[in-house]
Amino acid sequence: MLTSLSSLFVRTLRDDPADAEVPSHRWLVRAGYIRRAAPGIYSWLPLGLKVLQKVETIVREEMDAIGAQEVRFPALLPREPYEETGRWTEYGETLFRLQDRKGADMLLGPTHEEMFTLMVKDLYSSYKDLPLSLYQIQTKYRDEARPRAGLLRGREFVMKDSYSFDVDDAGLEASYQAHRDAYRRIFTRLGLDFVIVSAMAGAMGGSRSEEFLAVADNGEDTFVRSPGGYAANVEAVRFAPPPALPVEDAPAMELVDTPDAGTIAAVVDILNRDLPARTWTGADTLKNVLFKVTDPDGSTRPLAVGLPGDREVDLKRLAAALEPAVADVFGPEDFAKYPQLVVGFISPVSLDGTRVLGKESATKIEYLVDPRVVTGTHWATGANEKDRHLVGVTAGRDFDADGVLDVAEVREGDPAPDGSGPLSLARGIEMGHIFQLGRKYAEALGLKVLDSNGKLVTVTMGSYGVGVSRAVAAIAEETSDDKGLCWPLPLAPYQVQLVATGKDSAVFEEAARIGQELSASGLDVLLDDRKASPGVKFADAEIMGMPLIVVVGRGLANGVVEFRDRRSGDRREVAVGDIVSEVLAATR
Amino acid sequence: MLTSLSSLFVRTLRDDPADAEVPSHRWLVRAGYIRRAAPGIYSWLPLGLKVLQKVETIVREEMDAIGAQEVRFPALLPREPYEETGRWTEYGETLFRLQDRKGADMLLGPTHEEMFTLMVKDLYSSYKDLPLSLYQIQTKYRDEARPRAGLLRGREFVMKDSYSFDVDDAGLEASYQAHRDAYRRIFTRLGLDFVIVSAMAGAMGGSRSEEFLAVADNGEDTFVRSPGGYAANVEAVRFAPPPALPVEDAPAMELVDTPDAGTIAAVVDILNRDLPARTWTGADTLKNVLFKVTDPDGSTRPLAVGLPGDREVDLKRLAAALEPAVADVFGPEDFAKYPQLVVGFISPVSLDGTRVLGKESATKIEYLVDPRVVTGTHWATGANEKDRHLVGVTAGRDFDADGVLDVAEVREGDPAPDGSGPLSLARGIEMGHIFQLGRKYAEALGLKVLDSNGKLVTVTMGSYGVGVSRAVAAIAEETSDDKGLCWPLPLAPYQVQLVATGKDSAVFEEAARIGQELSASGLDVLLDDRKASPGVKFADAEIMGMPLIVVVGRGLANGVVEFRDRRSGDRREVAVGDIVSEVLAATR
Repeated sequence: MLTSLSSLFVRTLRDDPADAEVPSHRWLVRAGYIRRAAPGIYSWLPLGLKVLQKVETIVREEMDAIGAQEVRFPALLPREPYEETGRWTEYGETLFRLQDRKGADMLLGPTHEEMFTLMVKDLYSSYKDLPLSLYQIQTKYRDEARPRAGLLRGREFVMKDSYSFDVDDAGLEASYQAHRDAYRRIFTRLGLDFVIVSAMAGAMGGSRSEEFLAVADNGEDTFVRSPGGYAANVEAVRFAPPPALPVEDAPAMELVDTPDAGTIAAVVDILNRDLPARTWTGADTLKNVLFKVTDPDGSTRPLAVGLPGDREVDLKRLAAALEPAVADVFGPEDFAKYPQLVVGFISPVSLDGTRVLGKESATKIEYLVDPRVVTGTHWATGANEKDRHLVGVTAGRDFDADGVLDVAEVREGDPAPDGSGPLSLARGIEMGHIFQLGRKYAEALGLKVLDSNGKLVTVTMGSYGVGVSRAVAAIAEETSDDKGLCWPLPLAPYQVQLVATGKDSAVFEEAARIGQELSASGLDVLLDDRKASPGVKFADAEIMGMPLIVVVGRGLANGVVEFRDRRSGDRREVAVGDIVSEVLAATR
Repeated sequence: MLTSLSSLFVRTLRDDPADAEVPSHRWLVRAGYIRRAAPGIYSWLPLGLKVLQKVETIVREEMDAIGAQEVRFPALLPREPYEETGRWTEYGETLFRLQDRKGADMLLGPTHEEMFTLMVKDLYSSYKDLPLSLYQIQTKYRDEARPRAGLLRGREFVMKDSYSFDVDDAGLEASYQAHRDAYRRIFTRLGLDFVIVSAMAGAMGGSRSEEFLAVADNGEDTFVRSPGGYAANVEAVRFAPPPALPVEDAPAMELVDTPDAGTIAAVVDILNRDLPARTWTGADTLKNVLFKVTDPDGSTRPLAVGLPGDREVDLKRLAAALEPAVADVFGPEDFAKYPQLVVGFISPVSLDGTRVLGKESATKIEYLVDPRVVTGTHWATGANEKDRHLVGVTAGRDFDADGVLDVAEVREGDPAPDGSGPLSLARGIEMGHIFQLGRKYAEALGLKVLDSNGKLVTVTMGSYGVGVSRAVAAIAEETSDDKGLCWPLPLAPYQVQLVATGKDSAVFEEAARIGQELSASGLDVLLDDRKASPGVKFADAEIMGMPLIVVVGRGLANGVVEFRDRRSGDRREVAVGDIVSEVLAATR
């Protein structure tokens, strides 16, 4: 295909869009690939759509290769199936809801587990029909609280979602593995530097779950890796609790005056001064943080989280752990309801032994603690009195938590939960997510088949997603440089940008001839035949990011053209008679 | 491609779906091509999606061939652009509206004139950038009052919509003609029996407009044709008014008693009995029908329509003429407000000369008349008194209409407006619609470019649509028979259904071998390798509708297979060694 830039619907922009936070967003807009239509909602211009379609083709080929069958569900869906699984409510404000002219509740599909489950229930009834994998490449909707970074977190986006259906756990494991392998091939073909990490199942429900993250400094996800091969989204890290200690060895509780000690550091300083028999650090203190939790039905409840004082609550880990409920800060009006709680000096227990946190305590506030807070560990913590702390407060003796909540920040160098060495942290963009859903949806919607003994069994499912439009941005994020976009050959809208410079009509004719020859050889060529200065044309070629650039200009009089590599910036003169074969060689 | 029917996600149904009114709907559901997700909203199963994708490919190829450039806009759109053109309101209940989590008004795009106009305004500024044609193949939403007939009138559907941008009228004419030619090629390649008819512009605004209708008994549109080449959607027919007559030649008004004359026929009988000097027919009477019209802003107003008594108001013609306003019947509570109007005896004038209909009359009710009611024509009509009629009521003397409204039913044999002979009526499915929008949207949204003299001029636009998902149904409507679907070769999901019968494994192996050979030759083959009776397999092959059927069964022992043509039902024995070449010959 040979396209004239003078007729292509594109304009490059000299300035960054005001809302561009990341390179992919900046360059995709500036190079004329996409335009914003509303917050988190984008239109695709011809160049952008070509990249999107190439990503779609790669995804489709790899899904077909594992025997998944393509279908297409509506985006506008009835409420009922989502009501039956609880997601109509659980999705909260992220779900776009609307009513039709008859007042029927509808939604814009954020993901389609319910619809696929019902469709398989409609068509299939026997174990002989399984295993089955279905997929679609389709537009999805999520009303993100903070759409950002262009295509990276949008409210309307293209996803490939697939679903597997098996009669037993071994079948699910095989379907999951087939998808995992297909995803490795997809992200490899897309040229992404990616990692596979353990993940939270999130609002999907289910058990085993992994994410494919494109490694990127601007990624929204933080993940950890160990030298021994542990890899997890930071939200999914679960620390193994240390062994419990004997309670009877613990020291007695003791009151310490801590006037004006407004920080953990100040408390630690006082302890080291007044109780110098040992060295105190923030890790010896127990910090108790209160949250107001809103459940999907709109009701609220208080939650206290206890964790070592040298760590903060990681709000993303907290959000993931509580989903679909949402945590907010505990404000003055909330504290006002609990006179037992003295801000800055909160403790699960008072000096007289009164329990203050926990469902069975005076406040009845649910109390969940970090996995490090095991029975027999003793802590310095508040005394529920102003300017006073307690030391020797012992878990399992002086207080009891209602459960464990692993939401403390994870730090570079923390030990991997599986003992495979110290963790390092990095950031990534979630490109794919695979889940073993199990029987949650099949049970809720009654998807059963007859097994080989003629007995009805509930089908077990997997759910697998690829962010197709997001992939365009992730690839741009990884491959763009300070001059603009820079596509890998298999994804570029055109492999070659052919730039004719000057005003000599012989140059333009020769450029067109070369373009036709390259096009006839199967390449997609963008011919810059505009009446513009060489400087403008070179800058646009760099912004637009076709991997190979051929410049036909003054050198033509000497029988040469210039062949440039967009990524390396290498440029060399090539005899005009050789340029077609040189370009073809570079594309192989 | 070779697919095993035993693993294909499909089930045929023995019974018609309860809501199936037309063959395409019945067979697409029964053959397992689509399933209903909500009223007017369908999911595509693998077989259906393949047909849809083939239609998409044909449309894409023909749009690319006229130099239109593919883009893709969001379906979820902000309110503002549609507010600026008035369509946020004009679309009425047909528009799906919703609010996002911040309370911003949004809509699901029913068509994208506004968004394309704004995009071109964003990128282009000079006449040198034009002409430009852009298109998208995209999912659209309309909250139809009565979704029906499966894919034929859905609420979520796939459309190809394109838009042309020109600096002057000649450019628009050329862009329009290019689309018109492309549409002829598209519908020819789709194998549809289609007509091009003049159309109403409808909610789009604009001037010249034509529809491409697939001729179909079950079509929602009625169109007329004349021997001389006139063709129009019945909604767009505009009768040329006869010449006005001299008012002074008209007879005087005269009162006639018409007791119990509840119908036009009864009135005519009385007139022929009591005034036998001439022969009276229904066409000599003037019928006055009242409607309550609701404008898009929700306000209502009365409207009286006067037309010859032998014709009914065609409610679809009326709806099209009033759009975006909507007409309802005038109920007893409405008549109660106008004591001057006596139901059954309504007239624009009373015997004493009081004007009763018309903006200047006693009732102030707008009065619009059929084009046949020209000045000087005289009529028998009501007397605004019970059991009394007037004759000799003369237009332009005894009453004046506020305007003309051409909404009477059009009848077989009516003269074509252009004098090209008597009209015949037929029905069709609207497959494409092309509009010369002109400057309506460009003016509303400020799309101007500099012309060759450096002067700002408003761009003139065209808008062009193809119902892509509807085409799947229209083709099924035209090609299905009493046994099931029956696809033309270029659109069939598989060209060949290869049926292995019996239990002999040699038969199944040979069928698989033939399938592989056909697949290697580039054909798409569906191999029925199920453990099912020959009867079930043959019936399914007929319902599913692949054009060529090869049966491998008992004849294999004698070295023959059976080759069937799905459409004609022809079947013949072919030597097994020849079947591949025979099938290939049949697909050329």
